[in-house]
Amino acid sequence: MSNIPKIVILGAGYGGVLTALRLQKELNYNEADVTLVNKHDYHYITTHLHMPAAGTDNPENARVSISKLIDEFKIDFVKSTVVQIRPQDKKVILEDGTLSYDYLVIGLGGEPETFGIPGLGEYAMNIRSINSVRLIREHIEYQFARFKREPHRTDYLTFIVGGAGFTGIEFVGELSDRIPELCKQFDVDPALVKIYNIEAAPTALPGFDPELVEYGMNVLTKKGVTFRIGTAIKECTPDGVVVGEGEEIKSQTVIWTGGIRGNRLIEDAGFETMRGRVKVDDNLRAPGHENIYIVGDNSLMFNEEGRPYPPTAQIAMQQGVVCAHNLIASIRNQPLKGFVFSNKGTVASLGKGEAIGIAFGKKYTGRTAAWLKKLIDLRYLFIIGGIPLVLRKGKFF
Amino acid sequence: MSNIPKIVILGAGYGGVLTALRLQKELNYNEADVTLVNKHDYHYITTHLHMPAAGTDNPENARVSISKLIDEFKIDFVKSTVVQIRPQDKKVILEDGTLSYDYLVIGLGGEPETFGIPGLGEYAMNIRSINSVRLIREHIEYQFARFKREPHRTDYLTFIVGGAGFTGIEFVGELSDRIPELCKQFDVDPALVKIYNIEAAPTALPGFDPELVEYGMNVLTKKGVTFRIGTAIKECTPDGVVVGEGEEIKSQTVIWTGGIRGNRLIEDAGFETMRGRVKVDDNLRAPGHENIYIVGDNSLMFNEEGRPYPPTAQIAMQQGVVCAHNLIASIRNQPLKGFVFSNKGTVASLGKGEAIGIAFGKKYTGRTAAWLKKLIDLRYLFIIGGIPLVLRKGKFF
Repeated sequence: MSNIPKIVILGAGYGGVLTALRLQKELNYNEADVTLVNKHDYHYITTHLHMPAAGTDNPENARVSISKLIDEFKIDFVKSTVVQIRPQDKKVILEDGTLSYDYLVIGLGGEPETFGIPGLGEYAMNIRSINSVRLIREHIEYQFARFKREPHRTDYLTFIVGGAGFTGIEFVGELSDRIPELCKQFDVDPALVKIYNIEAAPTALPGFDPELVEYGMNVLTKKGVTFRIGTAIKECTPDGVVVGEGEEIKSQTVIWTGGIRGNRLIEDAGFETMRGRVKVDDNLRAPGHENIYIVGDNSLMFNEEGRPYPPTAQIAMQQGVVCAHNLIASIRNQPLKGFVFSNKGTVASLGKGEAIGIAFGKKYTGRTAAWLKKLIDLRYLFIIGGIPLVLRKGKFF
Repeated sequence: MSNIPKIVILGAGYGGVLTALRLQKELNYNEADVTLVNKHDYHYITTHLHMPAAGTDNPENARVSISKLIDEFKIDFVKSTVVQIRPQDKKVILEDGTLSYDYLVIGLGGEPETFGIPGLGEYAMNIRSINSVRLIREHIEYQFARFKREPHRTDYLTFIVGGAGFTGIEFVGELSDRIPELCKQFDVDPALVKIYNIEAAPTALPGFDPELVEYGMNVLTKKGVTFRIGTAIKECTPDGVVVGEGEEIKSQTVIWTGGIRGNRLIEDAGFETMRGRVKVDDNLRAPGHENIYIVGDNSLMFNEEGRPYPPTAQIAMQQGVVCAHNLIASIRNQPLKGFVFSNKGTVASLGKGEAIGIAFGKKYTGRTAAWLKKLIDLRYLFIIGGIPLVLRKGKFF
């Protein structure tokens, strides 16, 4: 057995990919064996998934082949599904094999949180992966085709989005852009189509600037979205949803964006978790495990006011950078770095040419905010894949 | 009330459109009032529907706006659905009105014949209209998206086509071209996809040249089609079909192309029918009704050997020409013309670059036959819409 330390990274999301890319850049020859494990042979750009879900962009623009991102001379890639993490044995059990590690990075991503609402798990779809958004896109188109054969079934043309957080808002923005195209393609009267965005909290985008939230809701309402804010989904059925005091909204399409939890594999591994997320130490390590780092939606960190950071791409990327630094520091017996979140701002798209956002301490709306959103997307492509990836995946128009 | 004779044409299929176009060309000013009634404001090119059904062409290339075909200064167009034909009152009841006529042309098109096979009406789709092929196309894509979320459900990737007549054969040809594209788009292993073409008769394309049939089946088998010839579908269920002696083939997609019957409206109107078709006289008139012409799939005619002509676009078009001639002759008190079918040949497409056909007494296969098929399609576009329509709808590549 070689005495080169073995680093295993589980998951090629924002946290895992950034960790891998930084290790690839900083590690010296033979300083460590790095293996990246991912279920698919591609990385997907979660913040872009609302577009292929609505059908306003090709799913190909939301994924990048892992072989285009990492240098396979420096990092081994294993396409497999993680079945079990065994910290006591320093092993990871895969669907088709086993990996030993000296250092482990867990960035397996979150799962939809349904808060025990009956039927959401069975009947609602989620904007969580390339496969799930392809399903949503095809499902929506299929409802238009079905309606033309059964014109009394207006529930085929009712689309319910549960949750008015960033994913829900960005998705209804795209969907309201797509509906006129679909109506034209299938000869459907646009007046028959209904989009509901249902949120239990007393406001859309809870925690975001109220003035921008109001601007955004006005834009989306004009585009045909009906908001039901402060309204809880009580149940999801094969026929639609039940909200508030037993009101039924009939629909064949329910998309749930109302919550993210951590990962069951982490709970099963014996870590102490809150909703499947591990409260990591300042250096991003799992408590009691000096050699296990946790990044992205699987980690839980609190800000200065003692509130948890939301699971965003921005934080996962920054964690990946610090995680890679600390892995190298451990190997070189150098001091670890503490993680400090640097908020670069937040922009929510509202569909073509419209967005709301805060960046550099300023509020932005309309075309400027939409352009800012595009710049953030392009910057990410540049960070992970340089100019070639920007040219291949970036949409400039 | 004016004493100008009123001609009402029901249906803008091949027979109805050709009748209308000829009347428009030949009638003198104020010689007759002509009204064309159709459910949609477009005519569709039924012989092209197998392509948009499989997704190898856009449905727009299989339909033509009626306003582009007829001159609305000369012919009135009413977009409505026929509810009842009342020969005794010389009236047609529409969904939203009533029309009186002196002369009636019925070209309402056929309906799928299920021969009483249980479940076919409920669970199978048909290649019969723009709306029905859009449903098939979206349904097929949806199965690929569903499979990616439920990879144990290989029945999502099994496609069953009932009937190996011209429609069935042409459709499996297109579908086998489309499958590799869909597999690429959805990351699906092509080996998992199955296409079955099931035919109860002892041969595919019954009545067609046996040598060409064998050629065609070889081409399609190489493209991945599994033929089950001489095998009857006993039942169609939500889970697939039951064939032969109780064998079940699991599938979520059954497309029935196994038979065409006439129209229930004709049966309801009191005409004597065989499977919804009226045996017309030599002049294309319904027996006992001098003022009612029946064209296309609603009419029944026998060849010299006493066998019924199959319901094809070719025969409907030729009937439309004779029907228009006889309507004008009736108005002008001139002798009517007898209908004589002139067989111009038959070509069946087998997908991209492959076809089989007989024309000018010769057999054709491969690229030459495919080119011949294309020429026939272009010729039809030219007949109904001239060069502008050929340029707009004709695919030259």
